[in-house]
Formats: sequence, structure tokens, C-alpha cells
Amino acid sequence: MFDLADIATLPRPDRARPRPSLGLIGCGAFGAFILPHLERTFDVLVHDPARDAADLPGTTAGLAGVGKQEIVVLAVPLAQMRAVATAIAPHLRPGTLVVDVCSVKVAPLAVLEEVLPPHVDILGTHPLFGPQSGKNGIAGLRIALCPGRDRARARLAKRFLQRAFGLEVVVTTPEEHDRQMAYVQGLTHIISRIVLAMDVPPLELRTTTFDHLTRMVDTVRHDSEALFRTIARDNPFAAEVRERFAEATGEVLERLRPT
Amino acid sequence: MFDLADIATLPRPDRARPRPSLGLIGCGAFGAFILPHLERTFDVLVHDPARDAADLPGTTAGLAGVGKQEIVVLAVPLAQMRAVATAIAPHLRPGTLVVDVCSVKVAPLAVLEEVLPPHVDILGTHPLFGPQSGKNGIAGLRIALCPGRDRARARLAKRFLQRAFGLEVVVTTPEEHDRQMAYVQGLTHIISRIVLAMDVPPLELRTTTFDHLTRMVDTVRHDSEALFRTIARDNPFAAEVRERFAEATGEVLERLRPT
Repeated sequence: MFDLADIATLPRPDRARPRPSLGLIGCGAFGAFILPHLERTFDVLVHDPARDAADLPGTTAGLAGVGKQEIVVLAVPLAQMRAVATAIAPHLRPGTLVVDVCSVKVAPLAVLEEVLPPHVDILGTHPLFGPQSGKNGIAGLRIALCPGRDRARARLAKRFLQRAFGLEVVVTTPEEHDRQMAYVQGLTHIISRIVLAMDVPPLELRTTTFDHLTRMVDTVRHDSEALFRTIARDNPFAAEVRERFAEATGEVLERLRPT
Repeated sequence: MFDLADIATLPRPDRARPRPSLGLIGCGAFGAFILPHLERTFDVLVHDPARDAADLPGTTAGLAGVGKQEIVVLAVPLAQMRAVATAIAPHLRPGTLVVDVCSVKVAPLAVLEEVLPPHVDILGTHPLFGPQSGKNGIAGLRIALCPGRDRARARLAKRFLQRAFGLEVVVTTPEEHDRQMAYVQGLTHIISRIVLAMDVPPLELRTTTFDHLTRMVDTVRHDSEALFRTIARDNPFAAEVRERFAEATGEVLERLRPT
């Protein structure tokens, strides 16, 4: 069986030996973004249940072909996770490492735990970057990692992510991840959507502070509505953050009433 | 009479000749911040109507002494502008250039136009930076400039600000300034106050997008409540921006209701 340790101990991809294989299911904005990064180390087969193979980048395969690889990465929206995991389950071989990259962790990992056969490993990840924030490279950026069934393999995955991609790996639990992300992503995405909904006119007079706001909005302005709902609605702690945001907004605007 | 052109044409402060004099009224967060920058070019006399001379940095003087200088900078909150301008008016000599640095321009310039004697010049400025955004130097940062009574002198002031401080000068009208700033500063300050009011817990998992939000909040978190009210309440266009923000917030949060 393919062993992550083989990669983890390599300082760089070793082109002399056979490359490990990886199946990437889902080639939307995020899947297409990580594909070239994955291809530096893996022979990648790509499949997208919602798109024609002819429209996909890289080497494509059917669902069964992708499911037979040593590592299978599910880069599909949370709403499709159950359907995709159910469809791929019969094709997975013993010892396969199934990795998800959802922006929440409690819900997708519960689905995978329920739907996938006991003979595969599950690793929850959340790359804390995307096509915008990673457009100049991903070295030095952060990824959250939730160990699944095999703790030793999760430790190897951590070393691999550090060495192969230069990522800063934060090991956490699905609950702690979602609790923090309800603020980290909830606030940035809600605020950015509000600013976008305001349709702010072009402004010549900009402060340094406004430049920070603009950078925040620009980072998420092209994210899909599905991602927005995952982050700001489907996170189990999102409702609490939305309530506190609404309450704080009311307080601050009240303080500004004309006296 | 002192001529700004003398400074504007100097590549750097010329220590061989007498330095022009400047009176700085108001030594709060912003006054104290610009004092060392002003002292590179001017002999500065400092006065703060709300503080004991013993507590002030630099060379202090009474209101009359400060008012006799060739340039008088009013770095006081908008709420005190009328009282301070009224108090200083009798001491101003013909040809004095009175400069304000308020974060709005329509209201303070109307007050100065009304209260100051016709024999002085008025120049509205809004440095689009502060103690936080200018802590590593102000070269390359922006300042808005609203020409007052003497257009030729405003042109000299523009060149002076460019050459002496390396600032990017944007010449505008008080109305256009306030219209844009209602968004630029209104949004950043309102959003930052909301985030601060939420008392967000410490977060280890941070995205690049969240880092932008944090930088925005950190830039304004120490600003005074008086400055916040000037920006988000006293700007004549602020009410419109607050209404649009509240409306957009309602829309975005509504989209996130559980289905």
C-alpha cells in the first residue's frame, strides 16, 4: 500500500520513482485551483459529477477510476457531499485515504463517517486559503487538519503537507474548527457580502484602513453562493455569530442616531 | 510675509535660514502624531485648550501666542471647532494660513468661513492616515486638500505637502470629500466598531481574508468616540451610508435564514 511517509520524508518530488496516485472529485473553483499543486507530487485523475469530462483540466476518469486511487480528495460543495460519498463508496479500495476540503468540518466528516466503508481512512482538512489568497503561491499559508480514523496516518499527512507544500498545519477537532471558523470566515464573508450588496461607488479618496477592507472584499468577491451558505449558514456555530453580528450592528448604529 | 513657495521649492529643510513658524492648536491623538513631522520643517508652538501646558509635548504657548504664527493648524474635534475658531480669531494676523485637519470638510470649513476674519486664508485638509496607518512614516500616504479663499496659495500648499512630506495630494471640494468619506471612513469605522462590540474570542485558525479584517480593525480600534461620531454621524452623507449598510445587512442575513 502507498505510504504517506514515503512522501513526507522526501524533500521534493522524486521523479525517478513511480508517483503516487490521487483522485480528485470536484473541479469547481477550489478543485481547479489545487489541481496544479497536487500534480507536482501526484499522478492526478480528475472527475466532476456535475461537469463534462471534456470541460475539465488535467487527466480525467470516471467515478470508478477516480475511486480506485490511493488518495481520493473530495472537493465538492457540502450540499453534494452525501451523494458523492455514497456514489464513490463501492469503488474505494481498503486503505484508501479519503480527504475532504470543506470550509466546515463537523457536517462533512459526520457524513463520510456514516457513508464510507470501515476499510478506508478519512482525513478532514480545511485549506485556509483559496484561489485569491493563494494566487501567488501557497507556501506559508495555513491548513486545518482533523485526524480521522487513523491517527498515525494523520501525523504523516501533517508532515507531508508541511514538507511538500510548505503549509502551516493546525491540528484541531471538527467542533473547535467550526467554532473558530464561524467567526473567522463567517464575519469576513458576511461583511464582504454586505459591502458588495451596497454597490459602493468608485472612490478616489482612500485611507489605508479602507485598503484593508477592499483587500478583504476582493478576496471573497468571486466565491460561490454555495460556499457562502456553507460558511455562514451550515456551520453549526454560524447562527450564534450571525445573532451577535446583528445585535452589535444594532448597538453601533443606535449610537450614531442624531442627538 | 512668509511664503509657502519658499518651502515648496526646497528639496529638504534648510537649517541655515530661519524656519517658518507654525501654531498647532489641539494635541490629542492626531495633533501629537503630526507634531514631530511638522517640527522637521517648522518652529512649532503647541496649545491645547483642554490640556495643561505641562502635559503637552514640544514648545507650548498660550492661545494668543499660537495664533500669531504664520500658519495655524487646528487639530481639534469638530465639536470644538466653533469655540476654538472664535477664541483664536482676534489673535490672527493678516495673511495667516489657517489649516484644519478634520475627517469631514463641509461642516468645519463652513464654521471657519463664518467665524474667521476675512484677512486670513483658510485651507481644508484631511490627512487620510493617522497614528496607526502612519506609524512607519507618512511618505506615500494620501491627503485630501480643499482650497479655501486663496487658490494660488492652495496650489503652493499642494506642492509643499508633496515635497516636504512625500504625500499624495488629492484636491477636491468639501462636498465631494464628504460624499466619498461617508463610504471610505463610514464603512471601515462602522464595521470595525461592530467587530469590536462582538468581542471576538482569540482565534488560532485564521485565513488571509481574516488577516485583512484584523488589520482594518486594528487601525481604528484606538480612535476616539468623538472621531467615530464625526465620521459616521456628522458627515452630511453618513446617514445615507448608514441606511444602505443597515438595509444590505438585513438582506444578507435574511439570505442565511435556515431553509
